[in-house]
Amino acid sequence: MYFKSFFDTQLAQMAYLVGCQQTGEAIIIDPLRDIEAYIETAEAEGLKITKTAETHIHADFASGLRDVIRKLGAVPYVSDMGGEDWTYQNMPDNTVFLREGDTIKIGNILLDVMHTPGHTPESLSFLLTDKGGGSSVPMGIFSGDFLFVGDVGRPDLLETAAKMEGTTDAGAKDMFRSVQKAKALPDHLQVWPGHGAGSACGKSLGAVPMSTLGYEKENNWAFQYVDEEAFKKELVEDQPEPPHYFAEMKKINKLDVPLASDIRTYPVASRELTEITIDLRAKEVYQSKHAYGTLNIPMNENFLSYAGWFLDYEKELTLIGSKEEADAAARQLQLIGYDKVKGYVSPNALDLETVSLTTEAEEFLRMYREKKQELNILDVRSIAEWKENHLDGAEHILFGDLLKKEIPFDKNAPVFVHCQTGIRSGIALGALEKRGFAHAVNIKGGFEALEALMDE
Amino acid sequence: MYFKSFFDTQLAQMAYLVGCQQTGEAIIIDPLRDIEAYIETAEAEGLKITKTAETHIHADFASGLRDVIRKLGAVPYVSDMGGEDWTYQNMPDNTVFLREGDTIKIGNILLDVMHTPGHTPESLSFLLTDKGGGSSVPMGIFSGDFLFVGDVGRPDLLETAAKMEGTTDAGAKDMFRSVQKAKALPDHLQVWPGHGAGSACGKSLGAVPMSTLGYEKENNWAFQYVDEEAFKKELVEDQPEPPHYFAEMKKINKLDVPLASDIRTYPVASRELTEITIDLRAKEVYQSKHAYGTLNIPMNENFLSYAGWFLDYEKELTLIGSKEEADAAARQLQLIGYDKVKGYVSPNALDLETVSLTTEAEEFLRMYREKKQELNILDVRSIAEWKENHLDGAEHILFGDLLKKEIPFDKNAPVFVHCQTGIRSGIALGALEKRGFAHAVNIKGGFEALEALMDE
Amino acid sequence: MYFKSFFDTQLAQMAYLVGCQQTGEAIIIDPLRDIEAYIETAEAEGLKITKTAETHIHADFASGLRDVIRKLGAVPYVSDMGGEDWTYQNMPDNTVFLREGDTIKIGNILLDVMHTPGHTPESLSFLLTDKGGGSSVPMGIFSGDFLFVGDVGRPDLLETAAKMEGTTDAGAKDMFRSVQKAKALPDHLQVWPGHGAGSACGKSLGAVPMSTLGYEKENNWAFQYVDEEAFKKELVEDQPEPPHYFAEMKKINKLDVPLASDIRTYPVASRELTEITIDLRAKEVYQSKHAYGTLNIPMNENFLSYAGWFLDYEKELTLIGSKEEADAAARQLQLIGYDKVKGYVSPNALDLETVSLTTEAEEFLRMYREKKQELNILDVRSIAEWKENHLDGAEHILFGDLLKKEIPFDKNAPVFVHCQTGIRSGIALGALEKRGFAHAVNIKGGFEALEALMDE
Amino acid sequence: MYFKSFFDTQLAQMAYLVGCQQTGEAIIIDPLRDIEAYIETAEAEGLKITKTAETHIHADFASGLRDVIRKLGAVPYVSDMGGEDWTYQNMPDNTVFLREGDTIKIGNILLDVMHTPGHTPESLSFLLTDKGGGSSVPMGIFSGDFLFVGDVGRPDLLETAAKMEGTTDAGAKDMFRSVQKAKALPDHLQVWPGHGAGSACGKSLGAVPMSTLGYEKENNWAFQYVDEEAFKKELVEDQPEPPHYFAEMKKINKLDVPLASDIRTYPVASRELTEITIDLRAKEVYQSKHAYGTLNIPMNENFLSYAGWFLDYEKELTLIGSKEEADAAARQLQLIGYDKVKGYVSPNALDLETVSLTTEAEEFLRMYREKKQELNILDVRSIAEWKENHLDGAEHILFGDLLKKEIPFDKNAPVFVHCQTGIRSGIALGALEKRGFAHAVNIKGGFEALEALMDE
Repeated sequence: MYFKSFFDTQLAQMAYLVGCQQTGEAIIIDPLRDIEAYIETAEAEGLKITKTAETHIHADFASGLRDVIRKLGAVPYVSDMGGEDWTYQNMPDNTVFLREGDTIKIGNILLDVMHTPGHTPESLSFLLTDKGGGSSVPMGIFSGDFLFVGDVGRPDLLETAAKMEGTTDAGAKDMFRSVQKAKALPDHLQVWPGHGAGSACGKSLGAVPMSTLGYEKENNWAFQYVDEEAFKKELVEDQPEPPHYFAEMKKINKLDVPLASDIRTYPVASRELTEITIDLRAKEVYQSKHAYGTLNIPMNENFLSYAGWFLDYEKELTLIGSKEEADAAARQLQLIGYDKVKGYVSPNALDLETVSLTTEAEEFLRMYREKKQELNILDVRSIAEWKENHLDGAEHILFGDLLKKEIPFDKNAPVFVHCQTGIRSGIALGALEKRGFAHAVNIKGGFEALEALMDE
Repeated sequence: MYFKSFFDTQLAQMAYLVGCQQTGEAIIIDPLRDIEAYIETAEAEGLKITKTAETHIHADFASGLRDVIRKLGAVPYVSDMGGEDWTYQNMPDNTVFLREGDTIKIGNILLDVMHTPGHTPESLSFLLTDKGGGSSVPMGIFSGDFLFVGDVGRPDLLETAAKMEGTTDAGAKDMFRSVQKAKALPDHLQVWPGHGAGSACGKSLGAVPMSTLGYEKENNWAFQYVDEEAFKKELVEDQPEPPHYFAEMKKINKLDVPLASDIRTYPVASRELTEITIDLRAKEVYQSKHAYGTLNIPMNENFLSYAGWFLDYEKELTLIGSKEEADAAARQLQLIGYDKVKGYVSPNALDLETVSLTTEAEEFLRMYREKKQELNILDVRSIAEWKENHLDGAEHILFGDLLKKEIPFDKNAPVFVHCQTGIRSGIALGALEKRGFAHAVNIKGGFEALEALMDE
Repeated sequence: MYFKSFFDTQLAQMAYLVGCQQTGEAIIIDPLRDIEAYIETAEAEGLKITKTAETHIHADFASGLRDVIRKLGAVPYVSDMGGEDWTYQNMPDNTVFLREGDTIKIGNILLDVMHTPGHTPESLSFLLTDKGGGSSVPMGIFSGDFLFVGDVGRPDLLETAAKMEGTTDAGAKDMFRSVQKAKALPDHLQVWPGHGAGSACGKSLGAVPMSTLGYEKENNWAFQYVDEEAFKKELVEDQPEPPHYFAEMKKINKLDVPLASDIRTYPVASRELTEITIDLRAKEVYQSKHAYGTLNIPMNENFLSYAGWFLDYEKELTLIGSKEEADAAARQLQLIGYDKVKGYVSPNALDLETVSLTTEAEEFLRMYREKKQELNILDVRSIAEWKENHLDGAEHILFGDLLKKEIPFDKNAPVFVHCQTGIRSGIALGALEKRGFAHAVNIKGGFEALEALMDE
Repeated sequence: MYFKSFFDTQLAQMAYLVGCQQTGEAIIIDPLRDIEAYIETAEAEGLKITKTAETHIHADFASGLRDVIRKLGAVPYVSDMGGEDWTYQNMPDNTVFLREGDTIKIGNILLDVMHTPGHTPESLSFLLTDKGGGSSVPMGIFSGDFLFVGDVGRPDLLETAAKMEGTTDAGAKDMFRSVQKAKALPDHLQVWPGHGAGSACGKSLGAVPMSTLGYEKENNWAFQYVDEEAFKKELVEDQPEPPHYFAEMKKINKLDVPLASDIRTYPVASRELTEITIDLRAKEVYQSKHAYGTLNIPMNENFLSYAGWFLDYEKELTLIGSKEEADAAARQLQLIGYDKVKGYVSPNALDLETVSLTTEAEEFLRMYREKKQELNILDVRSIAEWKENHLDGAEHILFGDLLKKEIPFDKNAPVFVHCQTGIRSGIALGALEKRGFAHAVNIKGGFEALEALMDE
């Protein structure tokens, strides 16, 4: 048996390639839209990807299922559980719809289908047995977004992101049962989850890429609860806010995703900046000089998790940066189904005249102590961070909501903005400019710096 | 002034980027369809490509003019000379049609238009003067396919490749006049030609990438003739056969070329091999074992010059090789306007059962001396090579014509094939298989080896 | 906790980087000499490699321990078990010598040391507990060459490769005890072995990169034996012949390994070919034409496993191939401690005049049936393959021994050579040339092809 | 003939590879220490580098002559002119010392040696004639640092950088004669100079990579002078200050340069920062937060031209940045003969606490107008820029001299620093910190911004 996991750092997502060397067949489980690496690996191993499976309809990225089907001619295996609302549409005739107890065969390898709802109603897990290796006991479980290392999938995305009321409670209940069901599986099973640390599909995913069921039974909080209500309460508490683009994903992944291509971006004139324009440069460079009203989301490994809050899937988007950065950003955006990048403008070709206002944490604290009630303070961190501690007198609006929610300050007055360390407040500066706040002031080092000073 | 030439080794083609640093404007002259390198260079230099020009309607590659226009919004400058048959069609409204004496301005740089027909009726050259550098004398000439290092453009392509009768003689006449006209230009001019050694647009292009007009006046054969008729005779004599795809180029370059994209190939099943299937592996590997009836055109720097003989622009094509080789081949084919690669098959996924028959030159010579008249001998070299010397009793068919011309041998008898050194005969082996000759035998080392032995 | 494995395909070797994000410290376990990837990964994760550990003195590659110590200033942790012969020498003063029960701390991560001899007397395993992740149960075991996926380490390398008599039996005994000891560990442990499929450190390693102890208890043959003698018999039977270079590794790894550098090769004149010269081209290309007496070991993913048979660590070596191939080969050789590549010769710069003689399996079989007793047949496969089945009348000499052992044939007579599929016999052709056999004939497709024909 | 130029953007330097395809020989003229690209190009063209030549003893980079000699076994051709002080030492026995009128043969290509002193006493030019191409007239001239596009080499480097008194005037005289000598050469010659725009070896080099002699006769200022004294005056006037490292180059290039290797850098502990530590990050990132007293020289295409001012060839150097940036910087430094990079520190591993003080040009101007006489203003531009125009009351010290010259300000008072646009003043900030000026304030946008405001 050949086995390889593919970890995408932007999405903290894992796809798995499993192949039978005896027959040359392989399956790709939970593929992203960028399928080149899967093909190259299979080719290097003398395998052909003939099948593809999904554990569930993903909420956090655009599925590569349709790419694998159409480009490689692979047969798709998808969930038939969860009811009508959860049925894949526009699938080819040879699609295999899976139910509890079904089996997928890849040469001499078996994947036994388990229904493990909770994250979503149709969620499946696959138990792998390597018959070719001569074993009759299962080796591991592809647990999708049911079971992570140290956590389980969150049941509230549908309600929070896709506004489907009442689904959170039902999901939490399902999840409790799925966990109990998993307890019956043997300790020695490897656990191959759908996400690693950094994904918004759970709240406390571990950074270790894989685990074993026995280890999770001992260490994963979800296995420690015997009381369903307590479990449910813990499960839904303090889940991170899902980025706005999640709402889009369920829809397109269920209905259809157009084929991905190797996106290349081209320079456009500076007059072609779009309503939302993303500046890809480092935050210090942006804050030193930028075009007024542009959003600063640096092209680094966290690009998608920030950009995903500001996309309008109906509209074009312009980028500011080098061709290399713009190409990279456009390819990342494609992974979450956004294909409308209009082009990029080189920073040299723009009048970059706006300097972000900045104050040292120390300086701010002095003012704060003097005249707290006169200051407009905006905390753009997550609700969980806010709940844990925040400045007295501050207003809270999540950075990703700044273009959507009302901001209760005078547009002509200074607004002091902070997040935890200074990255999200950097994005907030541009969002505030867009909303007409010309005097947003970034508190350097964020709440972390303020707390450190207050502790002294 | 910024100046950079881009040399494409497959097409032996040169594009030129010229920019004015004072205004930030740049022009790309004679672009290929793959425009990424032009953009990246311009960006690195702080330049924006705002204009693009062509010296003439190219016959040997698909023009990137339309890509530059549509992707970059550049204003096109093209020839208005040569009459109705030579008028670019489907051009944007802001197209500038150029006539003798016109000037293109790129910031403080001037390109003065000279009509230099001969290769084609509409051919232009551009004389560059760098006003920004403070000079009033021209610095060099973009001579397109009029003037090469050591040669001039051939006038017979239209007749030979595109079957336009009578154009060769008219072109040769034009070329004589264009050469005389060039004699009046100053010696110090740099000559920036459209092609380097290896192009089929001329017969004896030098390998040095550029020259000066004074040097060409001294050394280029074309400048030595004073008699028009003698010049014309020399010009058309022994021109290499143009690959079949040339016929296609004039048409699409005049009418329209669809936008290029970053082509990626995908594995297809072995049963999906197309009528023409190209095996991209090294010739020794192919000859050791291959699929019957496939053509062996190794993916190296000469790929296009061989593949261009066998393309059917209406039909799909399958490749044999790794994904990396197939992607590279598909990108190369796109440069000559062929976008229909269906996919590739990994050699491992095929039954490669056919071994090419081979004979050492020595062994062949022994047979040849014994029973010359009984042997079927096929010489697949160019007509010029054939004319210079060939085996008594051999038949001549150019390798690129083997799928089109009648082959006057018994399909069940051995056919001994040779070229000059063994590369083209390697391609011929597959072509003969396709035509039903199952007993083609490759003479190792080709005519070069035979001649060496006969000289001993 | 951060965890990443690094798999080297040439050596089928695994190194592991484990870091504590809370303190920023990291350890690299069983490093190769090429440490760039370890550093880059650590850097990207914000970790600093402050420690390094080895499970045992490696026999199959040159250890990167000294590189990590000297280049990164890391503190080394090595075995203090196994007695005097197994003590690392020339180690820095801050070296920690480990005994059963010791613990290595990397921030909040613990590695508990277990003595698991068998493969070698000093072999250790490390049990990892992630205190930082809040767990008190161990997560997995770095099992070195004690426990592989589906196999255990071989105890006979010292005797076979390093000629240390009597060590095999003692090692097998140790191994039995180590396996019993491992049975007491919990099923849920992840198993992180030192090698994957393809390593000569065991005979039947699985291709799956990791396993769990519970799964191994069920499936690994070594856990099924209760009788020590039967276990020992099974353990030593049919182990693959270790490449000659193994003898060198123990020595240098114990004593010292010079620091690795980024090796670059330079062209040398064709007259500078060394006694052993390795031709890196594909076997078909080599067999079609090569320099007499050169060895053909293609530069692909199996290069090291073949080249390791023919190295003389005291002498320089010349390569034939492109600069790119030669650089790659030289870097691979450095991984097994060979740093004496003299340079390379481009194939174009050589008189490649020798054509390898070849016969189709069918043709050979015809001769074999007619006059078996007159044929000189040489089987160069492993002893295990030979034992399973071989041609009546054939002689057996392992391909890797062809330069060392007597070859019992007339040097002027044809010698028919085969391996299983044609790769090792390709190498054998050159070795036979070196030994003066000018008429070695390769049987195409090897024993596999012969068997298929005989079955018909 | 094969011809290729290699342009190094950091050094604005040109090396030339010229080969004769008929004999397979090639020469590399004026090689840098990084010779990989030369070899790869030669190999791809089927050429072998058998000879190497230098136009003169370089002052601005470490010569790759010794690398080519020792790694490739090439025969060196160097100047025998200029007297004893200018004689290459420690050269191999087969070195050919060239005098006016000598000829270098590379297959059928001839290089005729011309003595063209001025830049240095031993400077040669090589006139190329391509006999293989059938020509008896020369094609072009390798003019080294004698003749550039639009300029001639400066004669004052020895006096300015290497403190050899009286050499400037003698050189200027020589240069006048060399220019007159060149006037006699034909207009059609291509001019292949040793440097392009950006080199400190001349003051007004054009950005066009090559020229012709006829064009230079018309446009190059040096050809317009008939009066020697006027020429000399113009020649030495306003030459840019040569970076301090120039002094080192003459010495090592004449005596010996150790062989270059592929330098890799390793992380060192933050306590290992050296006296001179270079921070490689973008200037905005550095100014936002950096380690006190470190110099900010961003790793971009101008790195060498700034770093060359601050190197102490006797001492080790630490870098701040990523491994990728540090490796790149170390490789660049090797090109100017500096091989003592100690390692790098990741920015994450440092306490970056110093924020550079900054003032907007507008704000500064307000203060300046109010109380000019009270401000400490430091202009760190070149002397030529200073001479053209500067702020009344400002002091001038070139940025590259800030660690060496006395700075006439109170260390506890604010010092307002500017250059032309803000890059050199960014470097100056760290230098001032090193010198104990804790209150250096950067004027954003530099003199350019100030002038624009004053013009309003």
